[in-house]
Amino acid sequence: MSATRITPEPRDWRLQLWTWPEVERYLEYDKGVILPLGSTEQHGPTGAIGTDALTADAVAQVVAERSHVLVAPPQAFGMAEHHLGFPGTISLQPSTLLALLRDMVVSLARHGFERIYVINGHGGNMATARAAFIEAYDRAASLGLASAPRLRCKLANWFLAPAVMAHARQLYGAREGQHATPSEIALTLHLYPDLARKLEPLPEPAPVGPIHGWEDFRCRYPDGRMGSDPSLATAAAGQEFLERAATALCEDLQRFLQAP
Amino acid sequence: MSATRITPEPRDWRLQLWTWPEVERYLEYDKGVILPLGSTEQHGPTGAIGTDALTADAVAQVVAERSHVLVAPPQAFGMAEHHLGFPGTISLQPSTLLALLRDMVVSLARHGFERIYVINGHGGNMATARAAFIEAYDRAASLGLASAPRLRCKLANWFLAPAVMAHARQLYGAREGQHATPSEIALTLHLYPDLARKLEPLPEPAPVGPIHGWEDFRCRYPDGRMGSDPSLATAAAGQEFLERAATALCEDLQRFLQAP
Amino acid sequence: MSATRITPEPRDWRLQLWTWPEVERYLEYDKGVILPLGSTEQHGPTGAIGTDALTADAVAQVVAERSHVLVAPPQAFGMAEHHLGFPGTISLQPSTLLALLRDMVVSLARHGFERIYVINGHGGNMATARAAFIEAYDRAASLGLASAPRLRCKLANWFLAPAVMAHARQLYGAREGQHATPSEIALTLHLYPDLARKLEPLPEPAPVGPIHGWEDFRCRYPDGRMGSDPSLATAAAGQEFLERAATALCEDLQRFLQAP
Amino acid sequence: MSATRITPEPRDWRLQLWTWPEVERYLEYDKGVILPLGSTEQHGPTGAIGTDALTADAVAQVVAERSHVLVAPPQAFGMAEHHLGFPGTISLQPSTLLALLRDMVVSLARHGFERIYVINGHGGNMATARAAFIEAYDRAASLGLASAPRLRCKLANWFLAPAVMAHARQLYGAREGQHATPSEIALTLHLYPDLARKLEPLPEPAPVGPIHGWEDFRCRYPDGRMGSDPSLATAAAGQEFLERAATALCEDLQRFLQAP
Amino acid sequence: MSATRITPEPRDWRLQLWTWPEVERYLEYDKGVILPLGSTEQHGPTGAIGTDALTADAVAQVVAERSHVLVAPPQAFGMAEHHLGFPGTISLQPSTLLALLRDMVVSLARHGFERIYVINGHGGNMATARAAFIEAYDRAASLGLASAPRLRCKLANWFLAPAVMAHARQLYGAREGQHATPSEIALTLHLYPDLARKLEPLPEPAPVGPIHGWEDFRCRYPDGRMGSDPSLATAAAGQEFLERAATALCEDLQRFLQAP
Amino acid sequence: MSATRITPEPRDWRLQLWTWPEVERYLEYDKGVILPLGSTEQHGPTGAIGTDALTADAVAQVVAERSHVLVAPPQAFGMAEHHLGFPGTISLQPSTLLALLRDMVVSLARHGFERIYVINGHGGNMATARAAFIEAYDRAASLGLASAPRLRCKLANWFLAPAVMAHARQLYGAREGQHATPSEIALTLHLYPDLARKLEPLPEPAPVGPIHGWEDFRCRYPDGRMGSDPSLATAAAGQEFLERAATALCEDLQRFLQAP
Repeated sequence: MSATRITPEPRDWRLQLWTWPEVERYLEYDKGVILPLGSTEQHGPTGAIGTDALTADAVAQVVAERSHVLVAPPQAFGMAEHHLGFPGTISLQPSTLLALLRDMVVSLARHGFERIYVINGHGGNMATARAAFIEAYDRAASLGLASAPRLRCKLANWFLAPAVMAHARQLYGAREGQHATPSEIALTLHLYPDLARKLEPLPEPAPVGPIHGWEDFRCRYPDGRMGSDPSLATAAAGQEFLERAATALCEDLQRFLQAP
Repeated sequence: MSATRITPEPRDWRLQLWTWPEVERYLEYDKGVILPLGSTEQHGPTGAIGTDALTADAVAQVVAERSHVLVAPPQAFGMAEHHLGFPGTISLQPSTLLALLRDMVVSLARHGFERIYVINGHGGNMATARAAFIEAYDRAASLGLASAPRLRCKLANWFLAPAVMAHARQLYGAREGQHATPSEIALTLHLYPDLARKLEPLPEPAPVGPIHGWEDFRCRYPDGRMGSDPSLATAAAGQEFLERAATALCEDLQRFLQAP
Repeated sequence: MSATRITPEPRDWRLQLWTWPEVERYLEYDKGVILPLGSTEQHGPTGAIGTDALTADAVAQVVAERSHVLVAPPQAFGMAEHHLGFPGTISLQPSTLLALLRDMVVSLARHGFERIYVINGHGGNMATARAAFIEAYDRAASLGLASAPRLRCKLANWFLAPAVMAHARQLYGAREGQHATPSEIALTLHLYPDLARKLEPLPEPAPVGPIHGWEDFRCRYPDGRMGSDPSLATAAAGQEFLERAATALCEDLQRFLQAP
Repeated sequence: MSATRITPEPRDWRLQLWTWPEVERYLEYDKGVILPLGSTEQHGPTGAIGTDALTADAVAQVVAERSHVLVAPPQAFGMAEHHLGFPGTISLQPSTLLALLRDMVVSLARHGFERIYVINGHGGNMATARAAFIEAYDRAASLGLASAPRLRCKLANWFLAPAVMAHARQLYGAREGQHATPSEIALTLHLYPDLARKLEPLPEPAPVGPIHGWEDFRCRYPDGRMGSDPSLATAAAGQEFLERAATALCEDLQRFLQAP
Repeated sequence: MSATRITPEPRDWRLQLWTWPEVERYLEYDKGVILPLGSTEQHGPTGAIGTDALTADAVAQVVAERSHVLVAPPQAFGMAEHHLGFPGTISLQPSTLLALLRDMVVSLARHGFERIYVINGHGGNMATARAAFIEAYDRAASLGLASAPRLRCKLANWFLAPAVMAHARQLYGAREGQHATPSEIALTLHLYPDLARKLEPLPEPAPVGPIHGWEDFRCRYPDGRMGSDPSLATAAAGQEFLERAATALCEDLQRFLQAP
Repeated sequence: MSATRITPEPRDWRLQLWTWPEVERYLEYDKGVILPLGSTEQHGPTGAIGTDALTADAVAQVVAERSHVLVAPPQAFGMAEHHLGFPGTISLQPSTLLALLRDMVVSLARHGFERIYVINGHGGNMATARAAFIEAYDRAASLGLASAPRLRCKLANWFLAPAVMAHARQLYGAREGQHATPSEIALTLHLYPDLARKLEPLPEPAPVGPIHGWEDFRCRYPDGRMGSDPSLATAAAGQEFLERAATALCEDLQRFLQAP
């Protein structure tokens, strides 16, 4: 995928701002597209409900700009059944999210896209997204799409990038936790500085633990956090997390686009 | 719904920037929420692929701010099967969109939301959204949710508001057309002035007509427009459309929130 | 569609009375078929539960005979979830009706039918039917059916024909209402004169209003009517409604069959 | 189930001609309802495509009148995938028919019906109908319907009644066959005497055999018959078949209604 | 199907012990495969919960060895919704089992298998299995599989083989019953002699009767048996039942494999 | 979970050999159950197609016996869409496997089981199984099952146990690979020594890499292996892998059963 072959005009890489002839020209040389995938779910007593979508989209925008790869608008609703005990959470059932992602990938494959790079901000989406990719491959082949044999999807979880996790461990140690972590909250502070006003000292983090049904979740983690101390988050750290995530995913995306 | 009862702190009405305790407090007095629903689909040779989502979200933001009603992040992908002949279109099958909207409404009903106001930017979503509301009512009742007997959903199509349609007729007459209309393109120019660079004179609009499968669609409407002349669009007109749409929907939303 | 090309033998246009070789010959010249679609649901304290299916089928029979177009047996069960609070209502969930209509259309497309004209008697079916058409187009294309590129479906709601609505307004004014309307009840009286014995003066019509879940429906409209006064219905008016509906739909069907 | 307890007014037992308060009164004493289930599929070169629905409905009407049990309008479309190689066949996939029957039964159970008696005219529906009953029991229980513990469904295939089969064997011997049988064709001649004009001598019946996919079906049974000679059918025999079927099913229905 | 053409090496006919190149060679000459299908459900107070899967698999192994036909591992979970009132029952809903069997058949058809012989041990699976076969034929054809026109499935219920039923009648008369029958329990004793320790004299068998929902089932048949007296079972009789079932199904399988 | 409280009679822990009253007694003290989950898919040119089910079941049996926990019969068919290019593979689509596992878990929860421990032998099942658990929690709660708030599922992949992976790395280094690994093949040799005859020296292992559609899979990995050298496998090593896996999972199961 050579960025130089792209017509220079559409400097903004957001699909929503392109026209269809521009996409048609893009596809003559490039076959990759980024899909930001988030979730709209509680993030502890002080974190923004949109954290997972805001962060995935932010990372996706930087990766798109640096990689010269088209990026779709974010899918802000994901699989968050286990958070339904907290007001504001909007969740798709796994089978719904599976159908949604399958339809999105098949739509893109129909046009000739061959590399679908899903930048994900929510651990709860991972299993379902992987299942959806498999159904998308099958569907594309069943439909006889020309791109089907070369269609590949990849799930890129920014928060699991080694450079991100290492930095979080260094800054927060065990207080990073599993949900409503200071690293993701920090990134939202960088994006929306006003969110810092919502932070406040919190009691000891709830113990880390497993995730089952939503009633069980609220019992185990009464304020929504899992082992984390989001009060440690700062906008400056958020900027660093964004940079580290974007750098890691840019490299990963290049490998994905160039791999056979 | 009395805005004064809302705690003044979260002046921004975007759900994604709230915390769950803020939503919990909101629900003590208010039961309404706005869901912006768009589509990611071709909008003629010069229009932005994201037009339907960008416009629905823009209207939703203004309505939310003026009405002091919580607004969810936009769902940018809708039912656009008939546009799949044009690169860049990402479509959910009707049964997928049905499940998605049903899950979203049921999630909200679980928390106690009783009035779900869907601000929609795409005609192709209308049938499926209405079917989804019915399944959501059933599901909420089956689950025994306390809010189920009072749960109501409403589809508000900004582009069908009489004040919007009258203005479009006055400005563009028959050249308003059915798809990639100058009114919706104008609104995107107001939001993203750079889009104006993509406009160019177009040949005579294709005749208006019916919508069937996507192969048929591309045959009938080879450049994606349906009877429209988007080159008439201006950012100034877009601002006026936004104002008219927001005014109309604010009133409609008040009636919806206050109705028994 | 030229009726003269049809073999004269099968003078009855009901598909259920034809043989498959007759259908095969019909398809050599004609590609249209009528599907009557109704609902089996309460129609107020004095109206027949089968009103929507009886009326749709009656209109369909007249249209078929005058237009020389094959007509399938009526589908008497539709989407009536909101009427489930009243005994006798039999409802299909939206996703079930969607699958049913999709399967019916795809069956017909497999044989070479290209114009599916659904004569509908129930507003509650409209959204789901439109969604089903889209899925049918996709399915037909996925199956590689030869007719797929030319397959078109149309929903024809007899009760919304301008000539019908104008007459109802003239006869009943606001007492026409929204459900269990005197116009549809009149048509059933024309078909089944004995039904007139069930009519009786009713208290003031319930106010018109929105439709949500079935518990809400029964609260708002305790006897099942929505803003209507079915006691105004007469068999003579019913005959006139049938004539007006059939005339309007015959014209509409011709346009549909002849359109490219 | 005592017919004398029924209010005498509605002498016609067709649900579609009743009002909801009449159904409500019926349910005070009786819990049974008949659902006629057919299919719309080829019946050999001389048989009516609607045979299975016409016969099931005819039997159902007689049973309803003699048993004083409410009868729903017929469901004319069933599972006929194996007949899709012949024009005019309209088939629901098994999973669609399953959902349809489940929804119908659950609707009726919601109102308090406890005995659902499906009079079926098509062998191809049997497997799916039985599967649907199981899902209906589960759904009714999941919804917490008061009638759920007493809900029972029964599939009554009129053509398999011993008195019917014995008579067919006596009249036609091996030429009764499996599909487009003279017995069912005879019943349609009794109902629609004009259909006799379509009969004509046919070549030797195709051998009986198994049913697999529709391509295989048309190969094995090129004119649509399976081992039958429908030219033997007469309207007089049809009347006798109707009488025998109705008598057998009336007795069976009484047992079903009275069983614990 | 000529066993002599099979490469002699894989003397064990269990698919799970073969390699894919061995299957590839097998398919050059043979197109048949056996699928054992059972259920995991209560079998009365003294019978093994796995009875239906153990017996189906035992019969399938003998049939495979004698017929030189490949046999898949058993599917131990089937449709047992009506037994869910008894601990240990694990049931798939009809629509789940339908999808499972459809996917299995389509997988095999993809490789070139054309004759799928399902040896079934549970009456409750029969309806759903037949529906699944139909959907598998359709799916295989939709996918354009080369084997689709020749794909055939057959359900072989070992317990309904005439030689089995006659022997059961002779040994047990009416005490054979319908569920947890001495014949099937006997077969399990032959397979697992230790199970005999669980047998004990039981009170009079519950009356035979219909099967509806699981609450109704447990009311009618409080200890899980239906009209049977499993205390009559012996391992010796079980050996005889296995022999009779295998003999009958071997012949049936040969006919199935050789039929056009 | 105290084994001493279990009645000593059923020394065999296989659910299929228990009666329902035995399960009922078990549930008075213990709430755990093991579900072995495998796959039936190609395992390279020399490995058994049933490897994943055979190994999962073998580990499960040892864990059950040592832990005194009930174990269900193995589910031998899993999600193996990517292996469908190789004969003998039988695959469930992700949405089918999701429904299957959901139904199994909900069945068990209905009886009072609260800890479902899935011992899995196939990486391809992991995503779907996790999605299924979420839907099972929701379904159990929707059904109002008493066990719902305490229902927990856990996926235990024996091949990912640290003690297993360390040993594989020590024995095989990079030749362990990703699919048809010597460690899993070794375990099958321990279970079925005859399988060793199928082993033979293989060309250099294919490079490791990603998994997409099945056409792509067969292109990348022409003989089915992914980076592995199964010719290194020995039965003795297989016994050691079984021991290490069982030991690790016994400890993990105890923690799972005792955790709040």
